[in-house]
Amino acid sequence: MNERMEKQLAFVLEIDKVKNIFRQTHLSDNGRNENDAEHSWHMAVMAYLLREYANEEVDITKVMLMCLIHDIVEIDAGDTYAYDAEGLQTQKAREDAAKERIFSILPQEQKTELVALFDEFEAYETAEARFAHAMDNIQPLLLNNSNNGGDWRAHNVTAEQVYHRQGKTKLGSEKLFEVTDQILQDNIKKGNLK
Amino acid sequence: MNERMEKQLAFVLEIDKVKNIFRQTHLSDNGRNENDAEHSWHMAVMAYLLREYANEEVDITKVMLMCLIHDIVEIDAGDTYAYDAEGLQTQKAREDAAKERIFSILPQEQKTELVALFDEFEAYETAEARFAHAMDNIQPLLLNNSNNGGDWRAHNVTAEQVYHRQGKTKLGSEKLFEVTDQILQDNIKKGNLK
Repeated sequence: MNERMEKQLAFVLEIDKVKNIFRQTHLSDNGRNENDAEHSWHMAVMAYLLREYANEEVDITKVMLMCLIHDIVEIDAGDTYAYDAEGLQTQKAREDAAKERIFSILPQEQKTELVALFDEFEAYETAEARFAHAMDNIQPLLLNNSNNGGDWRAHNVTAEQVYHRQGKTKLGSEKLFEVTDQILQDNIKKGNLK
Repeated sequence: MNERMEKQLAFVLEIDKVKNIFRQTHLSDNGRNENDAEHSWHMAVMAYLLREYANEEVDITKVMLMCLIHDIVEIDAGDTYAYDAEGLQTQKAREDAAKERIFSILPQEQKTELVALFDEFEAYETAEARFAHAMDNIQPLLLNNSNNGGDWRAHNVTAEQVYHRQGKTKLGSEKLFEVTDQILQDNIKKGNLK
């Protein structure tokens, strides 16, 4: 095995750890906490099936790749809950250090490519990044809605907080934001969101 | 929400169940059993990073999609261990029934597309299917190797059985089969494979 392949396979084994990073979201049927690998898988399948709702034409392969790799940095940085104000302040620094260590396991040009994809996702500026973020928002929303808003209730999340985050889905997909809005209004009515 | 989107979102929620289908493979660091969603995520990332080793040029988006959806039928059919002779006899019938029920949740043309992708993967006849299968073989091999062959030892799997399955990696990637062969020879020497 040459050095290039050794690096690639070392990275493949390293990212197995993503399966041990658990999120605040629970699986449907009031299941256990979801991990980052499952969440990323779900987002990638959704991106493909829902691509017709993107505001702008997207390179769907790129969107799927963003979905698949966007949480790899959490191997070191841990999951930061969307409504954890304190954690959010240090998130970027933690994720930058993780990005450097983890993607450096790859051959240089693959490191460069994946770091660029991750940075593009984070920057929220391209059609692909905006649509991938819409998936990152709507995927836990659908699970949480199926569980009668249990995750919001457990964390005393307010409608204002949720709209602040989920409102950005509009940037990637007006159509999917309409559904988001319906779901949120429904959960406010039920008292699941304050 | 119109009927089309309702169907798509119902399918998205249905496939959440893939996260509860556990395999015989264990995560690295002698972790817990792996589930199908994690396995599919890992395969899709690997397919992208290792695509240079495919024997023939592949449509990588199609390969990634095959990786992402190939185990959805196991929601109903359950996981069939690669070396479970009895289970393998009924696998196709169980998976055909599952395929019909689960993909029918989608709008007709998306059902047709995903069923075709699944069937193409199963048929093992195109460059994409062969490379996706190479991922399906090498992904658990790398985990199991990192755990000193624990899954083979637990099931008393023989070298002959493993070569029968892993030998097909050659059809998708001669290069990755060379690594597979090295790993298997090493595990035979260590007594992990009879």
